[in-house]
Amino acid sequence: MGRITARRRVLRVHRDGTADARADLLAVEEPLEIRVDGRPLSVTMRTPGDDIELSLGFLVAEGIIASHEDVVSAGFRGGEALDVTLAEHVAPPSDDLSRHVTTTSACGVCGKTSLAAVHTTSRFRPDTDPVRVGAVFLLDLPVRLRAKQTAFDKTGGLHAAALFDARSGELLVVREDVGRHNAVDKVVGWALTEQRLPLTGTVLQVSGRASFELVLKAAMAGIPVLSAVSAPSSMAAELAVDHGITLAGFTRGDSLVLYARQDRVVGSSPADVPDGPEPTR
Amino acid sequence: MGRITARRRVLRVHRDGTADARADLLAVEEPLEIRVDGRPLSVTMRTPGDDIELSLGFLVAEGIIASHEDVVSAGFRGGEALDVTLAEHVAPPSDDLSRHVTTTSACGVCGKTSLAAVHTTSRFRPDTDPVRVGAVFLLDLPVRLRAKQTAFDKTGGLHAAALFDARSGELLVVREDVGRHNAVDKVVGWALTEQRLPLTGTVLQVSGRASFELVLKAAMAGIPVLSAVSAPSSMAAELAVDHGITLAGFTRGDSLVLYARQDRVVGSSPADVPDGPEPTR
Repeated sequence: MGRITARRRVLRVHRDGTADARADLLAVEEPLEIRVDGRPLSVTMRTPGDDIELSLGFLVAEGIIASHEDVVSAGFRGGEALDVTLAEHVAPPSDDLSRHVTTTSACGVCGKTSLAAVHTTSRFRPDTDPVRVGAVFLLDLPVRLRAKQTAFDKTGGLHAAALFDARSGELLVVREDVGRHNAVDKVVGWALTEQRLPLTGTVLQVSGRASFELVLKAAMAGIPVLSAVSAPSSMAAELAVDHGITLAGFTRGDSLVLYARQDRVVGSSPADVPDGPEPTR
Repeated sequence: MGRITARRRVLRVHRDGTADARADLLAVEEPLEIRVDGRPLSVTMRTPGDDIELSLGFLVAEGIIASHEDVVSAGFRGGEALDVTLAEHVAPPSDDLSRHVTTTSACGVCGKTSLAAVHTTSRFRPDTDPVRVGAVFLLDLPVRLRAKQTAFDKTGGLHAAALFDARSGELLVVREDVGRHNAVDKVVGWALTEQRLPLTGTVLQVSGRASFELVLKAAMAGIPVLSAVSAPSSMAAELAVDHGITLAGFTRGDSLVLYARQDRVVGSSPADVPDGPEPTR
């Protein structure tokens, strides 16, 4: 476990016809089977490391657990399976969920049983979070995240997610993975083990796009602000509005775009709230 | 169906404290339920459009179909469900597969029931394909793909996959989606309906990274050469070696990196084959 990069002999070919053989580092992608109380729940393609956090964060996103008190133990029980033992007061995953599911390194809501269930209900209320953040603070987060992406530096093949305290500005945790949703699961799993759920007053910065699933994971962990370096999807924006999550995208250089709950970003006028009344002028 | 972009009112915030409200186009991400012979098989988050091709390509990747003769009909039967009716000679999906599964816009191998089953067996043999390609030809593919990404131009939020004929150099098809595996499924589904499977003598160019799942999808469609703009994962490289697929990564500007079966790339010396003997000098 914990092998994040793998060395391979590769050949770099140039346009002028020359080529040079060399050793290259690749981001490791390997399957992890997650079990709950001994029953297989999911098989996820992930970058090894922080597997317990990944599993716990996945269970938070699935709505199965929401506190460290919901978990008795979590660890490897031989081979590749990671087993999570739930506390007695926790309802086990439904039969629909409790079957083998293989998720890939880029899959986050596998396990839902119908279109309706895609909208998992969060126990937390990020919409009521009174946190405020400055635009300049948000604009600097991608650079601060990038500086911590040690495995990306070696391989160019890893996504990353970082959690920041909105009040102190402190970087709380950063995680990397071939799958962008896995990086977020690892962050949320870390928060659960640190007894920090719900993640009131925090900002989650991700390295890629903001898909529907990432907004859902933020909602399930009570994260009030999500910022992405790239574009959000339409459903990501809609879900952010539904859950009252501030969603920033294209956070690069000297500007960013707000798709929901811009009232939390200091300096933006309430008259400009998306989906709010048209500005009068 | 077919709504690829959605308009939203957003707020662009600048570092100097100014902000301007405007309309923005987002890439649409919506769930699609795929049914086989009336039974729900999968729920996929995808960009609408080419949904029949997406569904057929998904079934090819799952090893359920491999020819247009395996399909009697495919189309919407009310609401969001797309139903595929299999020919009588085709074995239906196993019970393990034949249940509701929600895959996200970035998930491609959901539905596998165990770690072993992650390695689906292909009916085709890309390893025996005698195709040869020039390095310069490969280096130009990302630019040719990018020129066709019309929805990306508007939203910045879509992956793309394009299929090229290695002999004529012709662009055969290009598809976009919020999920990179969906874009590949759409390409493969197109090929099935065009009666082109296996895709002997073709090159698949993708806009992002090369994950394990993309190599698997190429193998299941008989595609001998896969080229990615970004990094492959370790398992992608291993699977490419296993299936005899030429895997190129970091295909940008004036160079690319070969991770498997470089013997197909004209100009590269056999002595430099990855995993082969050390070059003597």
